Amino acid sequence: MKLYHFPRAPHARKVNIFLAEKGVVIPRIEINLAKKENLEPEYLVRNSRGLVPLLEMDDGTCIDESLAICRYIETLFPAPALFGTSPREKALIDSWERRMEFDGYLPGMDAFRNTAKHFANYAIPGIREEFVAIPELVERGRRRLDIFFRLLDARLGESEYVGGGQFSMADITAVVAVDSAGRSQKFLPRELKNAHRWYTAMYERESVSSTYIKT
Amino acid sequence: MKLYHFPRAPHARKVNIFLAEKGVVIPRIEINLAKKENLEPEYLVRNSRGLVPLLEMDDGTCIDESLAICRYIETLFPAPALFGTSPREKALIDSWERRMEFDGYLPGMDAFRNTAKHFANYAIPGIREEFVAIPELVERGRRRLDIFFRLLDARLGESEYVGGGQFSMADITAVVAVDSAGRSQKFLPRELKNAHRWYTAMYERESVSSTYIKT
Repeated sequence: MKLYHFPRAPHARKVNIFLAEKGVVIPRIEINLAKKENLEPEYLVRNSRGLVPLLEMDDGTCIDESLAICRYIETLFPAPALFGTSPREKALIDSWERRMEFDGYLPGMDAFRNTAKHFANYAIPGIREEFVAIPELVERGRRRLDIFFRLLDARLGESEYVGGGQFSMADITAVVAVDSAGRSQKFLPRELKNAHRWYTAMYERESVSSTYIKT
Repeated sequence: MKLYHFPRAPHARKVNIFLAEKGVVIPRIEINLAKKENLEPEYLVRNSRGLVPLLEMDDGTCIDESLAICRYIETLFPAPALFGTSPREKALIDSWERRMEFDGYLPGMDAFRNTAKHFANYAIPGIREEFVAIPELVERGRRRLDIFFRLLDARLGESEYVGGGQFSMADITAVVAVDSAGRSQKFLPRELKNAHRWYTAMYERESVSSTYIKT
């Protein structure tokens, strides 16, 4: 098993946090997105979309999509369970994980990707046809991040972790969403005490702090 | 267990196809989105986002997010497996399912939701604050659908079903993505023979044909 990744890319970081929490070490190959190594022919045969992260199994099967990679690792290495144990726990983690991605991570990407100069004509990850940035998405994304921060705070007022009583995949997606918002100068507002309590606890974890790279 | 749904809503249809494939019948309560029943206080206590579908467990736990609901049903009723059986199969299904959603369903939603009159000021599902439509997203979404159709056709040239050799959740998300594109008058181009072969096979399934509602 081999992981192709770029430590600065948010989805690659999710997998790296996941692996660190599991204590699983697998060979990693860095694909430098800044140098466009993801668009080299030898990478594109593994992943025609040119995205990272990518997991190559021992039989050569390649899967991309960070969440699919994390689930695969969970199947091979079940402990500690990061997608829950009981059906109810699993369902809550799955549901909250998706909220973190759709309500938090994606608006942050809208805000960032449509304003960053190097993405001006390549607004869609994994597509090499030109797509120009849409400036209105920046404002939409920023407003949605304000709503996301409040949703996160409300959830963390009723639950220690995002997915329930245990650290889970939902926290990983959430912390990456919050940090990605920072690239657009959007940060958890000071008054959201529950979210801040949780965020501090996240950074006390080696898996989270050791994978942070200022961008 | 109870399912709150609206048959015309694409995510609710995903769960309905899933249940039909499993042969599982659970009580269903229709929440009419056109009549804004999803914004009534008695629904909002179950789901503050006001989205369908929503699954209420016997202990009162509510989960939304169609994919989380389908996984929960898979855990309770494992056969026939719609998320795969072996770790490799599961990983491929997960990975392809996400591609269908991100590369197909979401662009279709961009194309539709930013042009439909009744969404003009409510462009974001599950958020009641006003968000005006962004017309540029319509063109972006339509172009991305062209790319999606080709991706789907290429995949179905190498595999009988989207996720591999068996019908799976990836096919469900894919068929709903293709049908949702139709709401923006985007249809599988005639020359994409693999995709058409698969689409015809999909509509030979009772689960798919019986849940189709022209919108």
